[in-house]
Amino acid sequence: MKPLFEETILKKGAFFLQEGQIATQIGFLRKGVVRAFYRTSEGIEYNKHFFVTPSFIGGYASLITHKPTTIVLQALTDCEVLTSDFRQLTALYDNHADLERIARKLAEAYFVQKEEREIDLVLLDAEKRYEIFQNQYPDLEQMIPQYHIASYLGVSPTQLSRIRKKISGR
Amino acid sequence: MKPLFEETILKKGAFFLQEGQIATQIGFLRKGVVRAFYRTSEGIEYNKHFFVTPSFIGGYASLITHKPTTIVLQALTDCEVLTSDFRQLTALYDNHADLERIARKLAEAYFVQKEEREIDLVLLDAEKRYEIFQNQYPDLEQMIPQYHIASYLGVSPTQLSRIRKKISGR
Repeated sequence: MKPLFEETILKKGAFFLQEGQIATQIGFLRKGVVRAFYRTSEGIEYNKHFFVTPSFIGGYASLITHKPTTIVLQALTDCEVLTSDFRQLTALYDNHADLERIARKLAEAYFVQKEEREIDLVLLDAEKRYEIFQNQYPDLEQMIPQYHIASYLGVSPTQLSRIRKKISGR
Repeated sequence: MKPLFEETILKKGAFFLQEGQIATQIGFLRKGVVRAFYRTSEGIEYNKHFFVTPSFIGGYASLITHKPTTIVLQALTDCEVLTSDFRQLTALYDNHADLERIARKLAEAYFVQKEEREIDLVLLDAEKRYEIFQNQYPDLEQMIPQYHIASYLGVSPTQLSRIRKKISGR
């Protein structure tokens, strides 16, 4: 599979996928942090996910549907990414059932992840969501700006700083 | 595959999956409407999805993870469901690559559906969401109570009735 992937450098702030593009590339993140977000017409950005190593990155829904993406992918640090054409990869499923199995399991895992987060955002308070974030991304807090974490948690930066003080005071 | 499925009647109000259960059954809905929802500790219910014919029903995340479900499935009308043990079905993937392909495509479609709805709830106003609902479920409005639709749209029943009047007055 290696010849299908190409080494790419994504500088901090650069976009792996821009709003309105039709995604064609899938990446394997070897170094760095990428955020997935979308923005309202007023320009408010909602961070939906952080990609950390090692993981695949891509505008998954757009890759599958071939529709323009609402989700934007942006490097939050300098990144190293192995990129590949998604169609070239999926074409391999026909002759490699093991690859299709991986794809099936990934799709299921993405669904579960999304559903859990969706429910957490409604059922859990911000402090609990922060604890889950810390467990899920143990090293991330030192690597990216705090307002990105606040946006991911659905709180203001001030609320986040209050939660932090409360927890560290325990 | 037919011998793997068993015909089941689900009476209006009956549960296909209860909160806290570990899902083991997948169903194929032949008749009726099933809602997927979760509830807060205060008892507020959020409708996440309506299953209409023909479709698979199940606590998908729980089937995959074998963890207790937060999502509850309840019949909103009398239903006919072909049910099967999910593990028995997935065991067939090993010898039937076509089944695994269907499973992969379903998982991808579920992900896309969830992401689109998640983004719509933030980016679109209630009127637009109602129009999408009407397109997606053309016959549903006559079949189930209006408060279930309001809950799905993230509005109060009063707001929903206002949106309806506005649209019908055009």
